[in-house]
Amino acid sequence: MPVSKRKSRLLSSLGEFGLINTLARNLPVSGEVFVGVGDDAAVVKGDSKKYMLFTTDMIAEDVHFKRGDSPVFIGQKAMSCNISDVAAMGGVPKFAVISIGLPKTLSVEYVKKIYQGLEKRAREFGVVIVGGDTIKSDKIIINVALTGEVEKESLVRRSGAKKGDWIFVTGPLGKSFGSAHHLSFKPRLKESRYLVKHFQPSAMIDISDGLAPDLGHILEASQVGARLKEGKIPRRNQASLKEALYDGEDFELLFTLSPKNVDKLLRTRTPFSFYHIGEITGKNGKIILLDKNLQVREIHPKGFEHF
Amino acid sequence: MPVSKRKSRLLSSLGEFGLINTLARNLPVSGEVFVGVGDDAAVVKGDSKKYMLFTTDMIAEDVHFKRGDSPVFIGQKAMSCNISDVAAMGGVPKFAVISIGLPKTLSVEYVKKIYQGLEKRAREFGVVIVGGDTIKSDKIIINVALTGEVEKESLVRRSGAKKGDWIFVTGPLGKSFGSAHHLSFKPRLKESRYLVKHFQPSAMIDISDGLAPDLGHILEASQVGARLKEGKIPRRNQASLKEALYDGEDFELLFTLSPKNVDKLLRTRTPFSFYHIGEITGKNGKIILLDKNLQVREIHPKGFEHF
Repeated sequence: MPVSKRKSRLLSSLGEFGLINTLARNLPVSGEVFVGVGDDAAVVKGDSKKYMLFTTDMIAEDVHFKRGDSPVFIGQKAMSCNISDVAAMGGVPKFAVISIGLPKTLSVEYVKKIYQGLEKRAREFGVVIVGGDTIKSDKIIINVALTGEVEKESLVRRSGAKKGDWIFVTGPLGKSFGSAHHLSFKPRLKESRYLVKHFQPSAMIDISDGLAPDLGHILEASQVGARLKEGKIPRRNQASLKEALYDGEDFELLFTLSPKNVDKLLRTRTPFSFYHIGEITGKNGKIILLDKNLQVREIHPKGFEHF
Repeated sequence: MPVSKRKSRLLSSLGEFGLINTLARNLPVSGEVFVGVGDDAAVVKGDSKKYMLFTTDMIAEDVHFKRGDSPVFIGQKAMSCNISDVAAMGGVPKFAVISIGLPKTLSVEYVKKIYQGLEKRAREFGVVIVGGDTIKSDKIIINVALTGEVEKESLVRRSGAKKGDWIFVTGPLGKSFGSAHHLSFKPRLKESRYLVKHFQPSAMIDISDGLAPDLGHILEASQVGARLKEGKIPRRNQASLKEALYDGEDFELLFTLSPKNVDKLLRTRTPFSFYHIGEITGKNGKIILLDKNLQVREIHPKGFEHF
């Protein structure tokens, strides 16, 4: 097999999204699939009132965490990022299966703590762990696959943002890797359920790649543009603007509300903080940043890429 | 973190089952979960007529395949072993999410071929791939999580074998790793569906660990024993008896039928081969082997272990 033949293109030459898009193009579709590859979770046929959601995330040692990190936090993270995907669709998580690749030299105690973290987050968010697989590997690899459900009227996709909608985030951004946030964050499930119950967002995504790239996903799916106000973007631990825009792994929700729902929100005392950071424009795919001196510049929806 | 502190127990000291059993003990349960950890797939609430099935399998380079193996076959295997788990419950597979860890130095062509294999098997067995995750890793890791469904009356568990039932397998055993079988096998889904439609097995499992260990799982879950007839165990490529009993990765179905269904089967021209290899006895947990000279000896349900 020409695994690394000189003339063949290597993975390192493609961005992750390029790869997924290339490969997803040929995937078979089915009348029971409402949203396939390309949103935070797949949406498939459920019962008469609800859709079923289905998502998966793999995290690996030295990419998403270090062996020296708290194993409880590592377990929490593996579960949390999947719950965050279900939250981004407006749904509630249900059942999880977990695969773990483990080095032989790891202590049983360490592995138990990973499971403690997985179970802790599962319990907190009503997830039932129903199965799994354990294999040996050189580095620690954890994969969680999670089902969920969402009332048909509560489903939020990336594709519903409209010109004039306001853009919000649920918390401060940037420096997630510099802090323990990327390991210990709590998925914004309550916030999501509160939003779909009262203000039905027109589009939503969880910020895993970074504010600019994930906003880019909403813009692409919705075929709109955005204008962000630099001074309104909440930042973690004195993150720079660049860090707030591109760092990734914040796991805050980024969502848009119609003017009507914005009015309603502004008249409501909410139990959660929602930060208004900008508006949706008609300028297809473009992100315009308005700085403190009211100068505008275009920024690129490109940040952290896995390859 | 005491990752490998001298006095702490290392994973290498535990069998895989020991580990899963230890960790599964504390898993929360729910009224919507009918079978959790400890069967081929989890069984959770579906609709009024069907249960939902949920399973996952992770395969890794240098454990379950080599980089020099056909990437199409590697993809096929990752999908097939999950379909085999659903078949072992009597169900049909539905939706899959796929996570892949890939080295940067892999060629795009190689990765495309892995996906081709995944898609080929998915298409053949009616599975729709609805999502996934791609990360970088030092070795190739593929995780498939698969949902399925099964009519409530068709569900087959490991726990239903009764004294007097006959034991069958769907094909020859042993030397799976020596051949391409462990990569190219076709999951026995049609066979499973034929069985649940006509002869409802009392217990079923797919042979991934090996005939003796997987029979051991049925015996443990059903609290019975078994008597196998050495001469009746079908073998692949002149496999030795030991290889047929312990090699693993055969992915044939091992199932038991009540005497009434055995009568019915013996009077039926089936479109598939079912090999009668022994009977269920009352001797709790024991596997007795009857050799060609009618000598009996006890064998141990211990074979290939992941650690």
